[in-house]
Amino acid sequence: MAQMLPYKTLIQVDRNAHTALHIQVCNSFITLITNGTLQPSDILPSSRILATLIGINRNTVKLAYEELINQGWAESSERKGVFVLSRLPILSKTSVPSSGKKNSRQEAFIWTNNFKDAVPGDDLQHTRLAIDDGFPDVRLAPVDPLMREYRSLSRKFYGKNFLKYGSAKGSEHLRRSLANYLSHTRGLHCSPENILITKGSQMGIYLAAQLLLQASDNIAVGVSNYVFADDTFKHAGGRLLRIPVDQQGMDVDQLEKVLRNKTIRAVYTIPHHHFPTTVTMAMERRAKLLKLAKEHRFAIIEDDYDFDFHYDNKPYLPLASIDHHHNVIYIGSISKTFAPALRIGFMVGSPAFIDAAAALRQLIDKQGDTLLEEAFAVMFDNGEMDRHFRKSLKIYRQRRNAFCELLKADLSDKISFNTPEGGLGVWAQFDKKTNLVKMSEAALKKGLYIGNGSFYKNESFDTNALRMGFASLNENEMTEALGILKQVLH
Amino acid sequence: MAQMLPYKTLIQVDRNAHTALHIQVCNSFITLITNGTLQPSDILPSSRILATLIGINRNTVKLAYEELINQGWAESSERKGVFVLSRLPILSKTSVPSSGKKNSRQEAFIWTNNFKDAVPGDDLQHTRLAIDDGFPDVRLAPVDPLMREYRSLSRKFYGKNFLKYGSAKGSEHLRRSLANYLSHTRGLHCSPENILITKGSQMGIYLAAQLLLQASDNIAVGVSNYVFADDTFKHAGGRLLRIPVDQQGMDVDQLEKVLRNKTIRAVYTIPHHHFPTTVTMAMERRAKLLKLAKEHRFAIIEDDYDFDFHYDNKPYLPLASIDHHHNVIYIGSISKTFAPALRIGFMVGSPAFIDAAAALRQLIDKQGDTLLEEAFAVMFDNGEMDRHFRKSLKIYRQRRNAFCELLKADLSDKISFNTPEGGLGVWAQFDKKTNLVKMSEAALKKGLYIGNGSFYKNESFDTNALRMGFASLNENEMTEALGILKQVLH
Repeated sequence: MAQMLPYKTLIQVDRNAHTALHIQVCNSFITLITNGTLQPSDILPSSRILATLIGINRNTVKLAYEELINQGWAESSERKGVFVLSRLPILSKTSVPSSGKKNSRQEAFIWTNNFKDAVPGDDLQHTRLAIDDGFPDVRLAPVDPLMREYRSLSRKFYGKNFLKYGSAKGSEHLRRSLANYLSHTRGLHCSPENILITKGSQMGIYLAAQLLLQASDNIAVGVSNYVFADDTFKHAGGRLLRIPVDQQGMDVDQLEKVLRNKTIRAVYTIPHHHFPTTVTMAMERRAKLLKLAKEHRFAIIEDDYDFDFHYDNKPYLPLASIDHHHNVIYIGSISKTFAPALRIGFMVGSPAFIDAAAALRQLIDKQGDTLLEEAFAVMFDNGEMDRHFRKSLKIYRQRRNAFCELLKADLSDKISFNTPEGGLGVWAQFDKKTNLVKMSEAALKKGLYIGNGSFYKNESFDTNALRMGFASLNENEMTEALGILKQVLH
Repeated sequence: MAQMLPYKTLIQVDRNAHTALHIQVCNSFITLITNGTLQPSDILPSSRILATLIGINRNTVKLAYEELINQGWAESSERKGVFVLSRLPILSKTSVPSSGKKNSRQEAFIWTNNFKDAVPGDDLQHTRLAIDDGFPDVRLAPVDPLMREYRSLSRKFYGKNFLKYGSAKGSEHLRRSLANYLSHTRGLHCSPENILITKGSQMGIYLAAQLLLQASDNIAVGVSNYVFADDTFKHAGGRLLRIPVDQQGMDVDQLEKVLRNKTIRAVYTIPHHHFPTTVTMAMERRAKLLKLAKEHRFAIIEDDYDFDFHYDNKPYLPLASIDHHHNVIYIGSISKTFAPALRIGFMVGSPAFIDAAAALRQLIDKQGDTLLEEAFAVMFDNGEMDRHFRKSLKIYRQRRNAFCELLKADLSDKISFNTPEGGLGVWAQFDKKTNLVKMSEAALKKGLYIGNGSFYKNESFDTNALRMGFASLNENEMTEALGILKQVLH
């Protein structure tokens, strides 16, 4: 028999750990077996010797060996001792990674990483003051009434049902409330059968992409576009055809030209306040887009995450509300108007499309948080959501006005922009001399997060501009933030 | 000029609606324009005439026309009146769908529906008494402490940050708590960098499938397997290679034979309590599977949704805990041990794999509910989760024993089964004469939901069996449920 292994070093126990001592010893032996230090048929030290070596009670060692045998790692042979199971495959010896190296754990299988470096930094979250991309102010949301409702539902007898597995389409109650809300606010008449509750509008885009696009199918998008939508279509195998966007929104005449030579499966558009440029699509273009969709049998993915925020007149009806041929898949969000981390959105389409989207959604995450969905339904029904929309619309209008006045007063030599009719951000064009990357870095050093514009660029769109969100800043904060920006830029 | 349209019928207003009257009138005109009833350059009736026809104030009509003009649907020509915008494309006239037909709204674009009829019925949710597939009892979960924590966090100044956009990987705090919990409970030593918080284990399976499989890549799965995993791999383009499963779990020798001729990208396995059959994979097979993975460089997707429920001895260490070559992607769930609708799960892998999974997850639904994740982290830290696991383990053990005794006493002529070592369900083999579809229908008429076995079948697996969940039934309920089943079967 070979020399005994240095068990004193190899098997270490921690008397303060949750795990029982004999389980710790057992697990240490499993590690030695699976990393090849101990091989099949090797004998284990006697309980007496091991107990002395590592300074624990002999009965603990016996319990550990029993556990090892029960778990199928070892076998005992009467009077001879305990051996590593002879039937185990022989494992080549590996060096155990040191605890210092565990972060560098690298996988040993083959896969294609299409998402290298795609996880964004989180400077935004860790900076006191931020000019974001156009996010809502979570301080305005009636979170407490929602939480009260959420908790109260969870305590009720029938509320327990909302904690179980539920429909992949989402709460029936919330779908009814939303059908009602969409009809009242934007003339979009639909039934609960037409609605899927999603996790924010992003999930609506993802599901639509997966259902509409097969490998190499064409989808038309704006030359400037929401990058996460672009990436979602590419991940689904789609080819992006970029259509120019001007002050009237997507240039539908250009789309018509493209359609002469190419078949497209879908158009993705944000007609209300285009992202990132905030332009609204003109009515004649909307009508023409619907006409083209009907003639060429493509789907329109209408991303209307921003409907609720329109300041100067009534917002335009969505394409979905005036689509008599049912080409439009309509996507909206409550997360954007309430609190981004409470992920609730919706998709409106034909019952067959919604059923298919729900079936796919079941493979992704089964279902939403039904209890939270029920709580939101109550908030719609009791008018709390409506009050929130009215209140935040008023506050965001004031903030837009104040922000644009400050920009004009202090930064008009560096930044040009059109006051947006709606939405939560200004599309700010910086003068050519301003280096946005350097600006962003310099601002961060002074405690202000502001993007560097890279988020808005793509292979066909490169401009010295960025979105400046005004909605999440009260007037003191925006004065301070733009003050820092002025220092940095001058 | 053509005869005037029957505006009295075409334009109807509802004085009780939320929407202002003039907006209702404006929207009615938009409908008439977009469905082709009104064509470009058509004149609209004078405000005086329309006001009389539909019985509203003339100023309301004027406001409606102003809105139409503002929105770009109409133009006014001085002294001549208001006209439909001449620049609009000519739209062919369509019949407006009657409100009764709106549910039958069918889309007019081309898409491939791979998910026909895949949305399951919801008898389970609407039946008082159910023998489910092995679900937890939500009545046992400490939902109220969780809700209290959730609400309390939302009220704190720093808690507001959890309502904003956060990391796609999930709460840093919960990832730390989970790393600690995984290390203590199953010797799985990892850092927060190795962990992605998902929406239940299903999202872990989905993300792994999308990252590992390209079109036509092979993935090995059990002959009997969790159908939503199969569907997820097929949706990702994978080809399923079915490996037999016996009382020792997946037959790794068969896998080895397959590997002589075929390259596989991944093996999906539930080594702890295989779904649906509840068998546990033997140790020598585990060791051999890891050896094969290393040699052939494939990934092992280890679905361990059920780890926390093991009744008779300590559960086996997961493959991930004894995987020194980092071939294993480990997937677990808190939803299954707490409440299915609160969708929290986790995936453990190399930092590069986790980063890529997070980037993809960002395209799917951006992020989880950070506030809920924080609340769960607090529940781990203060011992509430640990108490819950211990308490429910004890109760589920009692329920398993009681359920198996009842089965033996009352139904042993119809059902054969092995008492499961863990998990929340019994794999019940019915005698050949029992028609499970008829049994399920007859039971439903008596107020009991029980599956008909179709959920467990696939193209290579057809047996007269089903999973009988015992965990969600207290002893009175299981006595009643099995009493009904006995009536139905005899």
